[in-house]
Amino acid sequence: MTFDELQQQIAGHSLDAYILTRGNMFLGQDVLDEENQILSLTGFSGSAGTLIICPQKAYLLVDGRYELQAGQQVDTNKIKVVCRPGESLSQFIQKNFPEGSKIGYNPWCHPISEVDYWKRTLKSLSFIETPEIGNRKMLTETPCEIFEHEARYAGQSMEEKLADFKAFINQNELDAYFIAAADCVSWLMNLRSNALPDTPVLRAFALIGKEGDISLFTNDFNQLEVELSRYQGRTIGVSFNNTPRQIYSLMKAHKIWLENIANPIVNWKAAKNPVEIEGIKKAHQRDGAALCRFLSWLEKNGSTQDELSIAAKIKEFRKGQPLYFSNSFDTIAGIGANGAIIHYHPEKETNKRLKEGKLLLLDSGAQYLDGTTDVTRTVAFGKPTAEMIENATYVLKAHIALAQANFPEGTSGQALDAVARVELWKHGLDYGHGTGHGVGCFSNVHEGPIGISTRYSSAPLQENMILSDEPGYYKEGAYGIRIENLLRTVKKENGMLGFEVLTLAPLDKKLINKYLLNKEEESWINAYHQRVEKEISPLVDKQTQDWLKGACSPL
Amino acid sequence: MTFDELQQQIAGHSLDAYILTRGNMFLGQDVLDEENQILSLTGFSGSAGTLIICPQKAYLLVDGRYELQAGQQVDTNKIKVVCRPGESLSQFIQKNFPEGSKIGYNPWCHPISEVDYWKRTLKSLSFIETPEIGNRKMLTETPCEIFEHEARYAGQSMEEKLADFKAFINQNELDAYFIAAADCVSWLMNLRSNALPDTPVLRAFALIGKEGDISLFTNDFNQLEVELSRYQGRTIGVSFNNTPRQIYSLMKAHKIWLENIANPIVNWKAAKNPVEIEGIKKAHQRDGAALCRFLSWLEKNGSTQDELSIAAKIKEFRKGQPLYFSNSFDTIAGIGANGAIIHYHPEKETNKRLKEGKLLLLDSGAQYLDGTTDVTRTVAFGKPTAEMIENATYVLKAHIALAQANFPEGTSGQALDAVARVELWKHGLDYGHGTGHGVGCFSNVHEGPIGISTRYSSAPLQENMILSDEPGYYKEGAYGIRIENLLRTVKKENGMLGFEVLTLAPLDKKLINKYLLNKEEESWINAYHQRVEKEISPLVDKQTQDWLKGACSPL
Repeated sequence: MTFDELQQQIAGHSLDAYILTRGNMFLGQDVLDEENQILSLTGFSGSAGTLIICPQKAYLLVDGRYELQAGQQVDTNKIKVVCRPGESLSQFIQKNFPEGSKIGYNPWCHPISEVDYWKRTLKSLSFIETPEIGNRKMLTETPCEIFEHEARYAGQSMEEKLADFKAFINQNELDAYFIAAADCVSWLMNLRSNALPDTPVLRAFALIGKEGDISLFTNDFNQLEVELSRYQGRTIGVSFNNTPRQIYSLMKAHKIWLENIANPIVNWKAAKNPVEIEGIKKAHQRDGAALCRFLSWLEKNGSTQDELSIAAKIKEFRKGQPLYFSNSFDTIAGIGANGAIIHYHPEKETNKRLKEGKLLLLDSGAQYLDGTTDVTRTVAFGKPTAEMIENATYVLKAHIALAQANFPEGTSGQALDAVARVELWKHGLDYGHGTGHGVGCFSNVHEGPIGISTRYSSAPLQENMILSDEPGYYKEGAYGIRIENLLRTVKKENGMLGFEVLTLAPLDKKLINKYLLNKEEESWINAYHQRVEKEISPLVDKQTQDWLKGACSPL
Repeated sequence: MTFDELQQQIAGHSLDAYILTRGNMFLGQDVLDEENQILSLTGFSGSAGTLIICPQKAYLLVDGRYELQAGQQVDTNKIKVVCRPGESLSQFIQKNFPEGSKIGYNPWCHPISEVDYWKRTLKSLSFIETPEIGNRKMLTETPCEIFEHEARYAGQSMEEKLADFKAFINQNELDAYFIAAADCVSWLMNLRSNALPDTPVLRAFALIGKEGDISLFTNDFNQLEVELSRYQGRTIGVSFNNTPRQIYSLMKAHKIWLENIANPIVNWKAAKNPVEIEGIKKAHQRDGAALCRFLSWLEKNGSTQDELSIAAKIKEFRKGQPLYFSNSFDTIAGIGANGAIIHYHPEKETNKRLKEGKLLLLDSGAQYLDGTTDVTRTVAFGKPTAEMIENATYVLKAHIALAQANFPEGTSGQALDAVARVELWKHGLDYGHGTGHGVGCFSNVHEGPIGISTRYSSAPLQENMILSDEPGYYKEGAYGIRIENLLRTVKKENGMLGFEVLTLAPLDKKLINKYLLNKEEESWINAYHQRVEKEISPLVDKQTQDWLKGACSPL
């Protein structure tokens, strides 16, 4: 379907506008290019954006980081690019459409709570379910492999998890619960898939009956309606925040009572079990070995490398590690000014060579069967400037401040964001992203509900959760600095929670001015480096061992 | 009216329950004892609590700090005391009253948004406006003095403020705006009163027409209805969060359109103008002089003093200062174990003597015509234990961490709470209250919308706002420590906001272990003490000057 044909369809339905997202019924950011309808209709490839198509015009709503890119990729004669920092979709609709306007949307692509919100706040407009518009395939039919995530990695059998879930259903006096979140289904069933390049989740819905009976839906959503219809007159729990509106409509049509109950798996899987913790630690040792081999290699071979070859090389080292499955996200390798673009991924057109005096910001990670990694190191090639060293030291101080923090169990990550940031604020510096995110175990590398940010991070922290700690500083047109380790929440002797570092790779000492550190920070770095050398040396070749010795020597 | 008569009235109205607050139509905590209907009906004197009266029983809902006290003060044969940490009033009602229950409430005593919330979340119950129940006087008729807050203190004439407010009304295309918040009315009109003992606001509503015409309502609320009725068919703005439900009902009855628009004065008055800043600084010098005279006096005379005499003495010193008006709140003077009770106020029954080796926690402040103060010092009488010194030093480190923090304009106080707290968390310590609150200028000593706390502190910080910085540590049954200065937000050279300290009084060096401080913290204390001596010495007698010299000498 072309953009013009779509506009005709919208006019044919007498709609004033149609809301189109890049996603599918799994509601996350993870879609394949061939599934991304904003990409296929407009050419815009960004990872966030909403298209509002009217019979005669269209708006592409993007945030600040994509304003330029969107303007270059779409036909601006047909589509107006609107950058809306702080303005919500419904505020935009309210401003641009008069009372009585009819707005169509695909009920597969919006959570129940979002549609509720539109209807509640924009009472003078009509929102009309039109799943038939576009009439597109929501999921690709490329064959993919579905496989068991074995209990020796998952730490709990599907039967055990299911018993807990059955108890939850019965406690809430439900007849069944419908899980729409793919990562929750994957966790519960101990199933994974290779359908997505960097995220091994199985894209499926699950309907769990109160006897623990399960129906899984991966492609055949007609079967879903058949299964649901068996619950006529009974009660099914769903999480309104994470379930497509279409499910609500289907249940209503079949006279099923819906109850809005949060999916407990979101919290269950956030706190990792002992087997997962053990696996995650080992995965980080292997990942650290790969990264150290890469860093040692880069020191010798950097002058002939560019961003693309660097991204390929670090992947090559990781691929050689046992239990490696895939990258955990598209590698960010930004040299010089490219490092200052927070969501940069190297492309042929933008690819930069590594040159003397430049910084390389390398943010990468992998999915291993026993754990997921995500690490950023900033490396100076040749001699960095005093300014680079100073700013990198401030970023490091921010990183250490969070890594060393203690806090009561149940504190939200929201409350901790400034603990890191204040070290940069002191010098008039800041970074335009959160300080950290939750991390799954052989699952999403960005996993809710926890995080360390002023937004979306109100969930309480408990023992054995995994978070990233990644403050940064970005000088536009010049260079980017970010230091990221994954941390595990642990109980401290003083009764508080604190962190244990999981990631194992040296910090570039060329970018540390030790005279800007206090004693605690200096000891933290020396102890960390000592540990890195001790744990990684046995896993690497002689050349990398020699390199490690220097890279990990005391400040 | 007795409690039994009230129950009969409730039964007579066929209600299943009646919700009764301690407050009046000004919706704040500030009520006189003779206005507090929970006190007169039940004997409970706490500053927070809700009474739910049924024809045959009653519940008094309090938070943790009042559980014991409520049980002692009320007749528990008639009234069940319920401590509900984390459970909201509407959750309690939902649990305890079956579908179809009829719940009465006084629409003068609940904001519009609260009643909306009940109705939205508890659809199966009926909430019925019954202002006639209890039939009590909402405000005392004790004569009070109303006086102008002169522009030489307020920094802006009423005419200027009114011009801004008129512009606001017209920008929002309203015919009028109704202000229900007494402190906002007082600010706008440059009026104050002595009706309340510690808070000089004029308790009045104001109706401002789009021509800038004003009607003030202090006692005669029949006149209010007459004035409102002139707006039939027109639009009046009100803030649903701060306006009694009764106003909504009156407007609806007179066919007035209501628009829920936040009262802009809340933000206008949070950022102080240059004249207010100048006044606040001078008020803090005078207040510091009074406090230093007190502290110097206490060092000599402490052994014969108790909490009540201390509270009286500090008031006596303040009273002697120019432009003194009243205390800004009921003085907290807690010796030993009493210091560990966060909301403690000395009473005859609990009054403790100051003894060798005890800590005194003294939290006090005053209203001056040119500014409001609020300061806490913890003082060791005789020789403190090593544990006291260690914990007091950690509290001081937390205090300094916040006082020294820089942050971007617009950061919320919520984000900054942990910047102080993390210094205590490191040692397994914490405190059960926010780190700071906003402060008015010759107005409420607790002034929204800003604060430094994980709750109610999402408002963005701007230049020239006043906040308290008051971390603490409380060892139950033993002692309490709190260090509180007021801070002013200022622009720093690095482009960030930071703080300037307003409060001027030495910190007890007996409670500082300098070996636990880093260099920055040590210099902060020495520079602060140097400034205290320089600014306060010229304002005090020779004896206090000598004392200051010692109290302010370098660590």
